[in-house]
Amino acid sequence: MKPEYHKKLQIAARQTILIHKADTLVKLILRTIITSLKVKHAGIFIYDKAKDEYVVKVSRGHYGLKVPAGFAKIRRGSPLARYFTDKSINLPKEHILWSRVLSRIKYCKTKKDAKIENFLEALKLELSLYEAKACIPGFFRKDLVGILFLGEKRNRKKFSEEELRFLSVLASDVVMALKNAWLIEDLNRQIDINKRLLFQTVAALASSIEAKDKYTIGHTERVANYCLAIAYALRKREKIEGWEKFLENLKIAALFHDIGKIGIPESILNKEVALNDEERKVIQSHPLIGANILNHIEEFRQALEGVKYHHEKYDGSGYPYHLKGRKIPLIASIIALADTFDAMITDRPYRRGMSQGKAIEEIRKVKGQQFAPHVVDAFLKIYHSKGKLPELNKQISRHLLFAKESTF
Amino acid sequence: MKPEYHKKLQIAARQTILIHKADTLVKLILRTIITSLKVKHAGIFIYDKAKDEYVVKVSRGHYGLKVPAGFAKIRRGSPLARYFTDKSINLPKEHILWSRVLSRIKYCKTKKDAKIENFLEALKLELSLYEAKACIPGFFRKDLVGILFLGEKRNRKKFSEEELRFLSVLASDVVMALKNAWLIEDLNRQIDINKRLLFQTVAALASSIEAKDKYTIGHTERVANYCLAIAYALRKREKIEGWEKFLENLKIAALFHDIGKIGIPESILNKEVALNDEERKVIQSHPLIGANILNHIEEFRQALEGVKYHHEKYDGSGYPYHLKGRKIPLIASIIALADTFDAMITDRPYRRGMSQGKAIEEIRKVKGQQFAPHVVDAFLKIYHSKGKLPELNKQISRHLLFAKESTF
Repeated sequence: MKPEYHKKLQIAARQTILIHKADTLVKLILRTIITSLKVKHAGIFIYDKAKDEYVVKVSRGHYGLKVPAGFAKIRRGSPLARYFTDKSINLPKEHILWSRVLSRIKYCKTKKDAKIENFLEALKLELSLYEAKACIPGFFRKDLVGILFLGEKRNRKKFSEEELRFLSVLASDVVMALKNAWLIEDLNRQIDINKRLLFQTVAALASSIEAKDKYTIGHTERVANYCLAIAYALRKREKIEGWEKFLENLKIAALFHDIGKIGIPESILNKEVALNDEERKVIQSHPLIGANILNHIEEFRQALEGVKYHHEKYDGSGYPYHLKGRKIPLIASIIALADTFDAMITDRPYRRGMSQGKAIEEIRKVKGQQFAPHVVDAFLKIYHSKGKLPELNKQISRHLLFAKESTF
Repeated sequence: MKPEYHKKLQIAARQTILIHKADTLVKLILRTIITSLKVKHAGIFIYDKAKDEYVVKVSRGHYGLKVPAGFAKIRRGSPLARYFTDKSINLPKEHILWSRVLSRIKYCKTKKDAKIENFLEALKLELSLYEAKACIPGFFRKDLVGILFLGEKRNRKKFSEEELRFLSVLASDVVMALKNAWLIEDLNRQIDINKRLLFQTVAALASSIEAKDKYTIGHTERVANYCLAIAYALRKREKIEGWEKFLENLKIAALFHDIGKIGIPESILNKEVALNDEERKVIQSHPLIGANILNHIEEFRQALEGVKYHHEKYDGSGYPYHLKGRKIPLIASIIALADTFDAMITDRPYRRGMSQGKAIEEIRKVKGQQFAPHVVDAFLKIYHSKGKLPELNKQISRHLLFAKESTF
């Protein structure tokens, strides 16, 4: 017994449970095996469910390796896989397939059986392709999940029985760790899908609502993009509490900021002449109607504030609550600016949109009156560092998963 | 070395990675320890992040146990926790706290230090409360995640050094398995939250859209409930492929079946007199407008079919595509029936709703003409087994997470 490699491998096997990326896990195990057992190379065939075949992951040993690493794979019906799984192959099964033993089998036991002889030849060819001296199967219940294979030892000596027995145990540990890593990868993928689904759904609905008014097409998505850009710029200057959650809520709120318009009669919404007081009151109820729609969803509490207060103004002259200064939640201050900016630069039935430069100028003028000063500063910062915008946009697009193309 | 318990424990430790419920995992480990080491009882203190304290999980041994199981807990500042974590306690630290050794320490080393003496007394009291003869800490990095404690051996003999050393290794395995189980529990919880969020959002939006028409209030939610009831009843009679996914898509489709009405002018939508041909054409475009809204969301492909075809009729006389028979996707056939049934029994501006019995009679009459026969059969089955409905409703409510109260 060589306590040193034994211990190293045991530690490696035990740590596998903490590694939740299957690829990293396999690399770690293979590297440990190569270093501890002093083999020229080692590899592992891992079952790929989607492809229904075993894909080879190889760790290069100290002496290089001829295996076509990366995209090499064997079918489920290949001799090597069948050796461990096919019951009709009537060979004296051992837990470990040893190329040396294989030669012995052939000449003394299966002379009469041409089929088996063919199988053995194919198997030996397969082993030689990977320069595998020993193959250790890893089963999960009855499924062959992986096959670990070892190249020659650097000193060309045989593997000891002890070493191989230990590798056998290791293989089953690795299989369990792999199963675990796959599960965690799956769960994380599902979380990502569900999140994307939520944003996609919200975005689809938001744009279907704005579709009622041809003058606002694309408005919601652009506002969401501006909001995220402002949030990233702000974050460089001040700490934003619960950043990840804030960002998700900001996205939802930006997409839903006008959702309350669903409750406003079309006759008022689409009026092309100026509104009277009564009509203006009805229009101005849209932030509250919107907040009401989100009211029962606990997770959107912060988003709700964005929707509810996005028409408040920094000096208290906004609606519906005449909130003042920092009493207006940050999320709402950001939407307010983004919303106004986009409205300014877009054509409307009764006026043409102004240029970006002119709009920026107007916004700067009402900093501290209509808009929160720190939000305006962040916005100006983005505008004036235009050179860096493509990069910022890339970052945003990764977050704004539904965005086709950034508009800023 | 006693290979038997050694092996059992090793197997238990290795299997822990496959157990993704922390509670089950702890129970398994404790049961194995009690059986293999023949102790009267064993327990584990596990750190509870939310409460910032260690909660005791106890497995009853063969001789019963006096520990107040279930809700017993120790603070993070308790002597036992401090023994392993507080560096200011200047005791000869060993990896295992052994009550026998504790007594020895007290009398020969710390006589002069009253503070330490008090600490030791409190520690001994704490150990005696749990009848703990040995305590083995489980660390994750620098955090004390759990403390395993063992009662007396049944034969009252001492633990061997070998046994305790092995338990030490086991403790760290268990900690890793626990961390893993917690992670998986967390991920699953997050998936549930996100799913609920999606359905809540969809339901909130659907009901905000129907809020435009006071005569259809509650319609969407009722239709979703009927749809699920029909799906469950159908499933008892025939195999529904991809059941879980089907159910989720059915929920989305049922909630969104009229989402396309968002694109129909209010003047037509709310008309209280009969519509002319032109207006009818506009109204009849709502399934396609709805399908268009969901068009970019890959995961809702099946839901989209439900929205798109929910006005098709079994004999081909429906719209927009005049699909016939089984060419109408099941999801759409279910919504068609649920939608019509709810419309029949609800008051409208121009007529009163009919009784449930009368509506059922009407539906039976057009089985095979307007509606798919197997869907009607499933629906009748529900209606006629009213005695069992509360149970079905409970089942539905669990799925229809946003439902306040089932309406069927």
